[in-house]
Amino acid sequence: MTRTPLSPTPRSTIKRGKNRAVADRAALDAVLDAGLICHLSVVIDGAPVVLPTGYGRDGNTLYLHGSTGALSLRSALDTDICVAVTLVDGIVYARSVFHFSANYRSAVVHGRARLVESEEERLHGLEVLTEHLAPGSWQHARLPDAKELAKTQVLALSLDEAAVKIRAGGPGDEPEDIENDNAWAGVLPLRQNWQAPEPSDDLSPGWTVPQHVTDRYASPA
Amino acid sequence: MTRTPLSPTPRSTIKRGKNRAVADRAALDAVLDAGLICHLSVVIDGAPVVLPTGYGRDGNTLYLHGSTGALSLRSALDTDICVAVTLVDGIVYARSVFHFSANYRSAVVHGRARLVESEEERLHGLEVLTEHLAPGSWQHARLPDAKELAKTQVLALSLDEAAVKIRAGGPGDEPEDIENDNAWAGVLPLRQNWQAPEPSDDLSPGWTVPQHVTDRYASPA
Repeated sequence: MTRTPLSPTPRSTIKRGKNRAVADRAALDAVLDAGLICHLSVVIDGAPVVLPTGYGRDGNTLYLHGSTGALSLRSALDTDICVAVTLVDGIVYARSVFHFSANYRSAVVHGRARLVESEEERLHGLEVLTEHLAPGSWQHARLPDAKELAKTQVLALSLDEAAVKIRAGGPGDEPEDIENDNAWAGVLPLRQNWQAPEPSDDLSPGWTVPQHVTDRYASPA
Repeated sequence: MTRTPLSPTPRSTIKRGKNRAVADRAALDAVLDAGLICHLSVVIDGAPVVLPTGYGRDGNTLYLHGSTGALSLRSALDTDICVAVTLVDGIVYARSVFHFSANYRSAVVHGRARLVESEEERLHGLEVLTEHLAPGSWQHARLPDAKELAKTQVLALSLDEAAVKIRAGGPGDEPEDIENDNAWAGVLPLRQNWQAPEPSDDLSPGWTVPQHVTDRYASPA
């Protein structure tokens, strides 16, 4: 695997917890590909607003989308935005409350989003978003018609300015606390699991669950 | 259960997906209590920054904390901030890609954080944060000493200005697509599960996993 270093700017340079910073482009891709939703932050009337939303990655581009009427998306154009993808892998129990922590994988992307204008790239962006949310569905479900496309904005954000932090392993306790041995220390891992697919109430009875859904159900979330 | 309505301001009034807005104070508390981490958004040099961090709720107050050296926390004082807590409950597979969605519970809080100054409330805030991250641990682990307290900032954010959105159930497909019956439709639910506790490598061999950890392992995450 080629290890392309991230090229952080001052604001994407991690200042706190430098030992958790990962300066590796492949780690950024891995976190973005493992996440399901992101948190998008924009500034509206001078105040920060953060909202959960879907995303998808293709190479060096993160695609976002939403209704043309959404204030958060309109506020994301021609100005700085920030996108975070976070996976929590466990809770770290330490001997002192000061050293309690979480194990996690975190990616934070800064930049200016570009409104995708060509129909070809708009469809491509929607395919990337759909395949991230529900792999196999672009081939399976009905594709957007002209009316649906007209209602949908697609934004593209470069991954050039990004930071990755990963924490794994047990607590970093003080030597005195380890020696005093007064508390349990360890990790309670956390994992996301898919549950059995639930057909829609209005689905006609002839359907079996298609393979792209059963394959996902059988895989780690 | 007393149902106290949320009292939204213009920026905490949900404009998109109004059918998913929940104007019920108990729903806000439930989402905040079910989440594990939040995404905190602040404005730094005019640009939004969003970072994952811990939190805890006591009544109408959300507590945040961090190192006194953290730029994100320093930037959160005397100015507007925004905090989002999001739980993803499943992926909604529709007959058309336009109607793909996620089932989720989302809380977004807007406001100005107050720096907690009294030692009593600082300790209380840290207890609330610790008990949210790892219930039972404030009684079990060593409490912060003066040096650790001096390194830690505690912020308090009122929950007066908040919005809750909840999506549950199957897809909202178009009648023509339901009739055409060309794609599977349903939900692939997602659940977080605790995994077996992993004692720290440096834990002395006499320890069994304490009950506040085994109880949590036995509960839904």
